Amino acid sequence: MEQQHQRPIIRFQNGHFTQKKDLVAVEYAITIKLNEKEFATIVCTPEYIEDMVVGFLASEGIVPKWEQIKDIHLDTENGFIHVQTDTIYPFFEQLQNKRYITSCCGMSRQGFVFASDVLTAKKMSSVSVQLTTEQIFSLMNEMEEQADMFRHTGGVHNAALCAPDRLLLSRMDIGRHNALDKIYGHCLRNKISVRNKIIVFSGRISSEILLKVAKIGCEIVLSKSAPTELALTLAEELGITTVGFIRGNSFNLYTHPERIVLNN
Amino acid sequence: MEQQHQRPIIRFQNGHFTQKKDLVAVEYAITIKLNEKEFATIVCTPEYIEDMVVGFLASEGIVPKWEQIKDIHLDTENGFIHVQTDTIYPFFEQLQNKRYITSCCGMSRQGFVFASDVLTAKKMSSVSVQLTTEQIFSLMNEMEEQADMFRHTGGVHNAALCAPDRLLLSRMDIGRHNALDKIYGHCLRNKISVRNKIIVFSGRISSEILLKVAKIGCEIVLSKSAPTELALTLAEELGITTVGFIRGNSFNLYTHPERIVLNN
Repeated sequence: MEQQHQRPIIRFQNGHFTQKKDLVAVEYAITIKLNEKEFATIVCTPEYIEDMVVGFLASEGIVPKWEQIKDIHLDTENGFIHVQTDTIYPFFEQLQNKRYITSCCGMSRQGFVFASDVLTAKKMSSVSVQLTTEQIFSLMNEMEEQADMFRHTGGVHNAALCAPDRLLLSRMDIGRHNALDKIYGHCLRNKISVRNKIIVFSGRISSEILLKVAKIGCEIVLSKSAPTELALTLAEELGITTVGFIRGNSFNLYTHPERIVLNN
Repeated sequence: MEQQHQRPIIRFQNGHFTQKKDLVAVEYAITIKLNEKEFATIVCTPEYIEDMVVGFLASEGIVPKWEQIKDIHLDTENGFIHVQTDTIYPFFEQLQNKRYITSCCGMSRQGFVFASDVLTAKKMSSVSVQLTTEQIFSLMNEMEEQADMFRHTGGVHNAALCAPDRLLLSRMDIGRHNALDKIYGHCLRNKISVRNKIIVFSGRISSEILLKVAKIGCEIVLSKSAPTELALTLAEELGITTVGFIRGNSFNLYTHPERIVLNN
């Protein structure tokens, strides 16, 4: 499926209108059918949809492991993805009866609204990875270089899974947390350990993004943008290092500074 | 309630760490109880919460008119807002059984996922307001000047309701659509007509934002940022003029150009 669509637009510049072609990001709505029952509809950028659904079901605690998914089948024509599993989170039915409105920045009451958040967010109690200040700038640059589509359409968020010295995997999506679910799903399906890894994110660190990072199991999150207060409270509690406003030669270090060190 | 929280952070700049105080945006979770039944939880910036809830219920088609709300009472201590009404949208119970995940960028399958979207999105079939190119830049500047908190925390979205020649009302929120719900709720409660008015928005125009603009009933939406393809498809169908990437002395005009004119 196309992720960008070309369309004619009118550009105004220096007092004149001109016609040109422009690329805009595509939004695609996919409905998850879990054992043939409608579960949720996610609006996303149409690539890596299977990874996103696997990561979403795992981070919500509905189907925690890739091995528990017996079959996953994408029906692009009708906008469905069919997931067959023997193991469904037992409170699934109860959870479904509540309708939560994510504000694009958190889905939660005081951070933990779904029972599943409590079960799936991991607390990072040790320091298993450290980053130098130089590595912080270098990972952010690397992510931005990969983020071609953002430059073209201006309409998507980027996320990357990194080792301290290099970017491993980069995903983009019009939905903030979809990019992270795509990374998580890829790791689950391919048995890639997230231990000692870092998440780099293009957008603001809201409580929902922070929780997603904790659910994936990463200790450090880097962002070009700002965190929210609730995200920082959660980061402190969950033991996650939060670095924001990475721009030029400066950044802000908000929580758990023990994982960031000066270059030798 | 405080909308920004001051906290100590560590800043890295030009090779050195320094400690400083920084302002971060507050996320606040409020649960709507509709006739004492839990309806939805919205994560928001804690100001103008009543307006937001009134605007949200109206734009979702649950309680379309301000007069239909018999009582609205905010319980900040417990994070509840109690809404009493005699008139609830009849499919309310059915809607509640589906759990939709907004991806921060749309809540919809092909734009219209809730039955209520179809009922509440208004089609703009006439041109009742026009903007000159100069007014576009001037409204965007005015909104940015009002957006103090964005400059301070970097963590919020801004929306404004404008007449062609001036900004009338400006609201910010960590949630993209909350800022628009706050404007809509204010208009409903104070009987301010949205006819001939313009929405100016700081963030990306996703399908959900476009639908919200249509539900409010505005004909023109201006943004500093990019629209998505689905938003533009909806804008074309619904008759809304979309202007994006308003920066410096240029902008892009995506749909229904008939409402934008050159200065005399």
